[in-house]
Amino acid sequence: MELYEKTVSSEEKFKGVIVDVRLDRIELPNGRPATREVVSHPGGVAILPLHDDGTVTVVRQFRYPFGRVITELPAGKLERGEDHRVCALRELEEETGYTPATLTYMGALLSSPGFTDEVLHMYLARGLKPGECHPDEDEFLERDRVPLGELVKEVMDGTIQDAKTVAAVLKAKVLLDL
Amino acid sequence: MELYEKTVSSEEKFKGVIVDVRLDRIELPNGRPATREVVSHPGGVAILPLHDDGTVTVVRQFRYPFGRVITELPAGKLERGEDHRVCALRELEEETGYTPATLTYMGALLSSPGFTDEVLHMYLARGLKPGECHPDEDEFLERDRVPLGELVKEVMDGTIQDAKTVAAVLKAKVLLDL
Repeated sequence: MELYEKTVSSEEKFKGVIVDVRLDRIELPNGRPATREVVSHPGGVAILPLHDDGTVTVVRQFRYPFGRVITELPAGKLERGEDHRVCALRELEEETGYTPATLTYMGALLSSPGFTDEVLHMYLARGLKPGECHPDEDEFLERDRVPLGELVKEVMDGTIQDAKTVAAVLKAKVLLDL
Repeated sequence: MELYEKTVSSEEKFKGVIVDVRLDRIELPNGRPATREVVSHPGGVAILPLHDDGTVTVVRQFRYPFGRVITELPAGKLERGEDHRVCALRELEEETGYTPATLTYMGALLSSPGFTDEVLHMYLARGLKPGECHPDEDEFLERDRVPLGELVKEVMDGTIQDAKTVAAVLKAKVLLDL
């Protein structure tokens, strides 16, 4: 049986600034009807800024859905039509002030493909030159520098739980053969 | 400045079977008003079923938000009040038919903490005994067995992009010191 779900109709349920939500009626592979809830998101980038001394700049910010401060890699949403490499440079500069000499693509991440089309592109940034941070107005975050080996430990012991950060830290560990 | 966002009001925008969406008015750390879009999700589990021969059972299913078949670890949503270990055993048995002798917790994953409260719990399942699959009615998936080393390669080269699968495969690689 072909694993294909055919759209029958689509209804917009919520139009937000970050996400849109639609409820589609579909036809399952066996011809039976079903519904699909889709949260549409512009996608974004996450950057692992690795300094020459082996430390990584992380950011801590209040994440409203969890009501607490979470440790993550610098990250941000794509602007309409923006190339994700350009977005990575922009977000890294805005959130940390750093400009990298090299930016290595570490692949895409589908946050939760059952209900959202969000795709995050991960980059490893090296050869970092400091500058001034330009956080978005009304964006509040703290920066910290943590040795990459320590981040790997915090990912493995469950202290770090953010999906893009878990994925990018472990990808960097494998890439750099640490 | 304390990184805290205070809820002023909350409005339900969509109530679905999988997700609910609300739009909250909040007060930023600097006292200014802002809004937060929150996609509420019951959370779930992902299981890495590692066979004695070093292969892993993966599932391929059509993911409607992307309009294509995606390779993932067996996974599923928590039922109301369900313990995530119980959920992992249930979903593994439903999707693959296997019952594990040991189930090792590999930590939690926040899919996309900027807009959703979804938490996925990851497990490594070993000592697998085969049985019959009991997929949910109207759940269509194909099963395959892939060597763990091959999965690591596919995660690293970007063939596998699903966040929970990327995270669990690389966590297992580090845990098992491969």
